[in-house]
Amino acid sequence: MRLLTTPFDLVTGLSGDVEPIRRNLSEMAGMYADQAAFDAMVAGGDPLVYEFYDLGVPSDAGEIAFGTSITYPGKVGAEYFMTKGHFHSILETAEVYYCLSGEGQMMMENPEGDWKSVEMSAGTAVYVPARYAHRSINTSATEPLVTFFAFRGDAGHDYGTIEEKGYRNLLVERDGQPVTIENPKWGADPETA
Amino acid sequence: MRLLTTPFDLVTGLSGDVEPIRRNLSEMAGMYADQAAFDAMVAGGDPLVYEFYDLGVPSDAGEIAFGTSITYPGKVGAEYFMTKGHFHSILETAEVYYCLSGEGQMMMENPEGDWKSVEMSAGTAVYVPARYAHRSINTSATEPLVTFFAFRGDAGHDYGTIEEKGYRNLLVERDGQPVTIENPKWGADPETA
Repeated sequence: MRLLTTPFDLVTGLSGDVEPIRRNLSEMAGMYADQAAFDAMVAGGDPLVYEFYDLGVPSDAGEIAFGTSITYPGKVGAEYFMTKGHFHSILETAEVYYCLSGEGQMMMENPEGDWKSVEMSAGTAVYVPARYAHRSINTSATEPLVTFFAFRGDAGHDYGTIEEKGYRNLLVERDGQPVTIENPKWGADPETA
Repeated sequence: MRLLTTPFDLVTGLSGDVEPIRRNLSEMAGMYADQAAFDAMVAGGDPLVYEFYDLGVPSDAGEIAFGTSITYPGKVGAEYFMTKGHFHSILETAEVYYCLSGEGQMMMENPEGDWKSVEMSAGTAVYVPARYAHRSINTSATEPLVTFFAFRGDAGHDYGTIEEKGYRNLLVERDGQPVTIENPKWGADPETA
């Protein structure tokens, strides 16, 4: 910052002006249920799973951090490509996502175990209430899932909780449809599970 | 609230689920420079100038208020259709707008008199820094200006300052182009100026 205007393509989500942060599959060790499929895909090219923007808005309660998030189509075994997902470091802060293109779900869970996963497609605004971890999941076989997001500048990202325990639920494809199942590894150390 | 998902059309900005707040021209008395043109347009049908959504997100610092704003094409004399514009009641809070369709400008000014007006079109994210009043202005002759906005849930709207003093600058059309000029009525009581 402080860029007063920043371009983000309405379909691809990409900005010509700023470099995104890219997450290849190898950076998501332990997050997918099918370890053999994960290992094979990493060895076979380590695909780009998602990218997003951090414009460097100051970490202050009066600021609003924003940008786009692009999750690419793909699966690891039966499980759809997704973001790592995170809580906010300041747990009591919400976030809003507005879906610009694609099809998917926003999976949310709070520390007490309440969870919900809501569908989104182009034109859906999704409200992530305070206290809920959130993860974007792309259920399309062909199109990126692109969202515009906004949250309080000082909210921060707590990735560690999800990296350690995982999500309580996973979204997998069965008979061509997305189905939520319990995460068999939930709560275990993902590096040894 | 609490709707976890809310639809907003990516082109029109309209939601099928929620009623927008509508502002017809008659509700903007004193805000346009050309009083005779204003009076004639109000008498001639009182056109809808803009509409926006208030989803009722709780007024809490951990929440994010969001929705769309739609400013229709039109002019009052040489001055483009625009929103009333407002400061946040909590002045030290920012806001982000993401333009979904149309062409226009976001005009901003702070209490100390610093101002800037930035162009936006589909795919432009505009950051309104803390302390800046902000007004959307539609410079297209034919298309609505549609934005998705997000700000802190407790930020609040201070419309009164602008209603009393006006903006320091106006955006008018000259030779087919938008031009910023000083507001001849700035600081005066708009009801008697």
